[in-house]
This record gives sequence, structure tokens and C-alpha cells, in this order.
Amino acid sequence: MSVWQAPGSDESGRIILGIDPGLASVGFGVIREVSGRLFHVDHGTIQTSSDQPTQERLFAIYSGILTLIDSYRPSAGGIEGLFFFRNVSSALPVAEACGVIKLAFRQRMIDLSEFSPNDIKKAVSGTARAEKKQVQEMVKMLLGLADIPKPDHAADALAAAICRAHFEGPSGLSIVGRPNFKKSK
Amino acid sequence: MSVWQAPGSDESGRIILGIDPGLASVGFGVIREVSGRLFHVDHGTIQTSSDQPTQERLFAIYSGILTLIDSYRPSAGGIEGLFFFRNVSSALPVAEACGVIKLAFRQRMIDLSEFSPNDIKKAVSGTARAEKKQVQEMVKMLLGLADIPKPDHAADALAAAICRAHFEGPSGLSIVGRPNFKKSK
Repeated sequence: MSVWQAPGSDESGRIILGIDPGLASVGFGVIREVSGRLFHVDHGTIQTSSDQPTQERLFAIYSGILTLIDSYRPSAGGIEGLFFFRNVSSALPVAEACGVIKLAFRQRMIDLSEFSPNDIKKAVSGTARAEKKQVQEMVKMLLGLADIPKPDHAADALAAAICRAHFEGPSGLSIVGRPNFKKSK
Repeated sequence: MSVWQAPGSDESGRIILGIDPGLASVGFGVIREVSGRLFHVDHGTIQTSSDQPTQERLFAIYSGILTLIDSYRPSAGGIEGLFFFRNVSSALPVAEACGVIKLAFRQRMIDLSEFSPNDIKKAVSGTARAEKKQVQEMVKMLLGLADIPKPDHAADALAAAICRAHFEGPSGLSIVGRPNFKKSK
């Protein structure tokens, strides 16, 4: 994907939108990076109901991502990829949601990188073996928050945004070792 | 999903768009059903290159489906669901493609049903144990074609369209036994 210079990418920093994909709940996290320093902007989830047909849920997710992009005008995105899952039948609906999320970023021409859970753990906490709780504590600390962001999906999305900030931004974060980034193809 | 009355669904029959999903190649098949009789309209594939980023490929598939819908104005769609696959890592990209295909149908408010490969085999050839070649021969026969449609993805898509025609249309086809349809949720 060709790199696009975001209009908001000036001395006031750049906005990064992180996504933790799902069908019932898509986590999102918005951060601002200014000269390597990270600031929290927003986080939350896009919720869909299992009472709805899949098509409606995918449409709600797609519309929700477009709304987030249009509201926050990010210059880059990071999404946690599907690398581990308990069973295939639960992974396929999440992959369908990933498809419409990637499409929304493409339609707004926002560069989106996909990271493995281990990449994200390593970028945020310095080790791929970090526990979930450790990663959440690091997210809280790096963004100067009073509490761990809730729910978990939103915290994971903020972690994906931090990972993306480190991916190509100034190396202002104290990361031990650089993760093996897989650029989303 | 609420049922939508297509403007083209009159005495000249109704158009059904069948889809065989994939990331590199999405098969499509367009048929017309008039009082239980089926007629071939078009078939082919949407191709994407592995040289492209995933986002671009998903966008090409999404745009291609929208173009097909706008060209043929189907009143219903049928898609072969992902139920069997060799390995998970090959299934996930196809599921992402399924996501944007379902989104395109939703955006045009075209009712889309998802069928298992066995449902489709049974609807087309009367038995879920039919070989691929048998199903293709039946597609050729039911649509009065001179040859088996090529490539395989397009033949599979025509089979999905036939399955959808039988799903809720007049029972004009000589099907042995009714398949266990799973309505896409």
C-alpha cells in the first residue's frame, strides 16, 4: 500500500488508531504521538449483537471504523492480527470482521499495519512473554493514565496503536529490543 | 436480514448472483429463474494479484461485487461458506474476503444466503456425496450449457446460485431430497 502523508501529521504530532478485531466487540484506541511521546486520546469498543445477521454486524463494524477515521483523522493504523485462536470456527467470523476493517482503512487511504500479539507485547512491554496484565499496566504507564483502560479489547487496541507508533515513529520509547514486525501485505 | 423486493423480480423472472469466495480468485455466477426454470446469464471470476497488499485485494473484490450487483441487479444472492479447508492460515484470508463480499451485498440491500459445500452439492446433484465433476455436469445440464463452465470457481458460483434459486424459489427443479439449508445469520 502506498504511503499517504496525513494532513494532521505536523508539529502537533500524529494520530494513530489501534484496532483489536472481533465480531461481537471491536476494540479501538486512539493515541497522539508528538516527537516520540505518546498521549491518550480515546478508547472504547464497537459492539454488535448476536441477534443481528452477520451482514448487519459487519456493516456496523465497517461504519464504525469509518466514523472513527473521519472523527480522529489518523495518519496511521495498527491492527492485531489473528495468529492464535482456540478453534477455527470462532476465528472465521473475526477474520470476516478484519476484512471489513481493512477495507475501511483502504477506503480512507490510511496505511494500516498488522501485528502479531507477540509483536505487540514486545513493543509495549519489552518481551513477547509478558502477561496480559503486564501489557495493560505498560499501556497505562506509557499513556500516563490513572487506571488500566477498560474493557480489555480497548486496552489491546491502545497497545496495537503504541506498537504502530513505535513501528515507524521516532524511537522515543524505552523498548528493550525491537519486535519482528510483519508489515501487513 | 430483512427481505427486499427486487425491482427486477417480475414475470421475466428474478436474477440470482452466486459467489464462490476466495482472495486470489472470487467466482461469480449469474442466473435467471423464471417460474422454476433456470437460465444462464453470466459467469467468471474477480482476480487479485498476490503482489498487491491485502487491503488492495479486498478493495478490488468489494468493488467487483458492487459492480456485479449494479450491472445485473440480482434480487438474491448465494455464497458458498467456509466449512472445510486444509489449514487455518489459508482459510483466514478467504474469510476476510467473505467479509467484504457480505458487506457489499448488505450495502445494496440484497439478501444473501450462505450454504455449506454439501448443501450446494445436494441442491445441484441430489446428493452431498457427489464428486466435483458430477456437480459441474449438473450445472451444465440445468443451465442448458454446451460445456462445463470454466474456471472451477465460476462453476462453483453458478452452483451456489442454483442452490439459492431452489432455496426459496418455486420447486421446479428435480432435486432428490431437500438440503439442510443454513440461512446466513
